[in-house]
Amino acid sequence: MAENIYTLYDFPDSGNGYKVRLILNHLHLPYRYRAVDILAGESRQADFLALNPNGKIPVLQLADGRCLAESNAILWYLGEDTPLIPADPWQRASVLQWMFFEQYSHEPNIATSRFILKHTEVDEERQRALEQKRPAGYAALDVMERHLNNNTYFVTDFSIADIALFAYTHVAEEGGFSLAGYPGIQRWLAAVRSQPNHCSIDAIG
Amino acid sequence: MAENIYTLYDFPDSGNGYKVRLILNHLHLPYRYRAVDILAGESRQADFLALNPNGKIPVLQLADGRCLAESNAILWYLGEDTPLIPADPWQRASVLQWMFFEQYSHEPNIATSRFILKHTEVDEERQRALEQKRPAGYAALDVMERHLNNNTYFVTDFSIADIALFAYTHVAEEGGFSLAGYPGIQRWLAAVRSQPNHCSIDAIG
Repeated sequence: MAENIYTLYDFPDSGNGYKVRLILNHLHLPYRYRAVDILAGESRQADFLALNPNGKIPVLQLADGRCLAESNAILWYLGEDTPLIPADPWQRASVLQWMFFEQYSHEPNIATSRFILKHTEVDEERQRALEQKRPAGYAALDVMERHLNNNTYFVTDFSIADIALFAYTHVAEEGGFSLAGYPGIQRWLAAVRSQPNHCSIDAIG
Repeated sequence: MAENIYTLYDFPDSGNGYKVRLILNHLHLPYRYRAVDILAGESRQADFLALNPNGKIPVLQLADGRCLAESNAILWYLGEDTPLIPADPWQRASVLQWMFFEQYSHEPNIATSRFILKHTEVDEERQRALEQKRPAGYAALDVMERHLNNNTYFVTDFSIADIALFAYTHVAEEGGFSLAGYPGIQRWLAAVRSQPNHCSIDAIG
């Protein structure tokens, strides 16, 4: 039997963590799950900071103790030499293009709005943040829609770029973003969900 | 003679663009330079949006017209199969870890503060943004310092992770961030500057 070589430190409702759970499921890789209660400040405590000095989940730990942070870097590590990352250099760079887009233009607007609405009291400052993030989040969805009008996936076949962007797009409505006007995104969400070994955001381990 | 196969669409004062100019210089790759005046809205006009629907510089264009956006994806494309990206899978993922850290935890705080101070009128809203970005930017510098206390570069040898993080760290003071308390970062900045084929942010082409 294969040993559980990976340990995933994660917050169960995190889309960034869900990306890693998704790829582990796609690749049939067993893992141990360690829930980190970021709402209780556990990701800012010394034992967690020893794993990731940047104080953010998810963290993937190998059996020898080495740790890797940043969800999209973890996707790359696990996806290399599998069908989830293309072999062609241009396509590989295009996968990364969409993953950097996800972290810079999508996640800080759509994921952060969802976090504010689901996990905080919306005071005046947070209300202002939500209002700033709304047009920027819709702009990111517009960029995705334009691409998905002519493409089934972000880069040729299903890849880690799709996993990265699916994680928070499929729960965008929890962040106050309606996907009603985005038929391309809706088709793509269905295509990702129809992949063998897909799992939902609340399926852990 | 080698043709100029690359065209770089860029804003000359951009650190994200500077990353690409740096790697092109390190690799002795000639390129055509097309300045895009983002202050005049040129990156939001139709001819630029045809290159990058996300409306952001830098964009690297190949001779056949294909375009790649996201500075760190461009670094990966140009750096693959050169000494600027390690061959070991864990080290490759670690390079990406630092590059995603750069785009999520560093650039939105340090680069954006610099942009506000250099290129805008600081009204009440921007002053509030600066105040929010200050602790987050110093937190990113703290993470870098902790790593550089025990390491010459971010991942073994000089790599695109160093290029990505150098671009805005070396001008952090223009964003209001003092590097006086960061001896590890200062040593690393000097090590990056001492690389053969280094060029400054105002060296173009």
